[in-house]
Amino acid sequence: MHTVDLKLVTVITERLLKDRVLDDLRKCGAKGFTISNATGEGSRGVRASEWEGQNLRIESVVSRAVADKIVEAIADDFFENYAVIVFLHDVQVVRGDKYV
Amino acid sequence: MHTVDLKLVTVITERLLKDRVLDDLRKCGAKGFTISNATGEGSRGVRASEWEGQNLRIESVVSRAVADKIVEAIADDFFENYAVIVFLHDVQVVRGDKYV
Amino acid sequence: MHTVDLKLVTVITERLLKDRVLDDLRKCGAKGFTISNATGEGSRGVRASEWEGQNLRIESVVSRAVADKIVEAIADDFFENYAVIVFLHDVQVVRGDKYV
Repeated sequence: MHTVDLKLVTVITERLLKDRVLDDLRKCGAKGFTISNATGEGSRGVRASEWEGQNLRIESVVSRAVADKIVEAIADDFFENYAVIVFLHDVQVVRGDKYV
Repeated sequence: MHTVDLKLVTVITERLLKDRVLDDLRKCGAKGFTISNATGEGSRGVRASEWEGQNLRIESVVSRAVADKIVEAIADDFFENYAVIVFLHDVQVVRGDKYV
Repeated sequence: MHTVDLKLVTVITERLLKDRVLDDLRKCGAKGFTISNATGEGSRGVRASEWEGQNLRIESVVSRAVADKIVEAIADDFFENYAVIVFLHDVQVVRGDKYV
């Protein structure tokens, strides 16, 4: 079965930012999202406010180019004032042409 | 600590297909699954019915050979009529002999 | 945008072990966690008690060195008596200096 190498972008964010994060993802070219609940917990020594409480995990499978744009947009829009986490990893996707 | 290189298969599917998807995974050789809730959201321009609503994320750690079989089975059984997503990524697993 | 290559550690564990697992992660150097609900299901032939029921997925982004320590600690503390799963994968993280 033919697979395409793409990037899975994961954004962990507080719930309040959901619409703004999705907006960034759409503007950068993401075509669909999977959203799930996640709870953040900090270790001792990390400010509680930065990690604790109900968060959302927002994921999208995108091309490398779109992933780079998303990372830049999320960093620009949220890193100064919010505890948003974003990371990428490589995925092999079937029916990959739907994502790019 | 010794780790084994395996594949994590992720299937995002509507809830109704759960038993059929798990059946495919079992038949292909998967030995255990992790199932969690996920909500799909489409971007503008994608038919709502394809992405929105309550979905399941079904994950299984398997060998490369089993991963290939799963991808083929899921594609054959669901891609024509359902909005099922399947992707693979590399994982390093401890106690990896349990999965193959 | 500059990203750093790190490891995402995923631990799938029964709910009762949550505090002990988090303790291991903290002691090994993890600085924050994302916790979500996941249900385990076994295939036929696997003892039900090993996989079924409500589990937690605990994830943390850490350095390679911390990931290795975590894997060793989890194996030492839980593998003999519990159905704990741990695996690693590579992630590219923005603002990666926060994790190491």
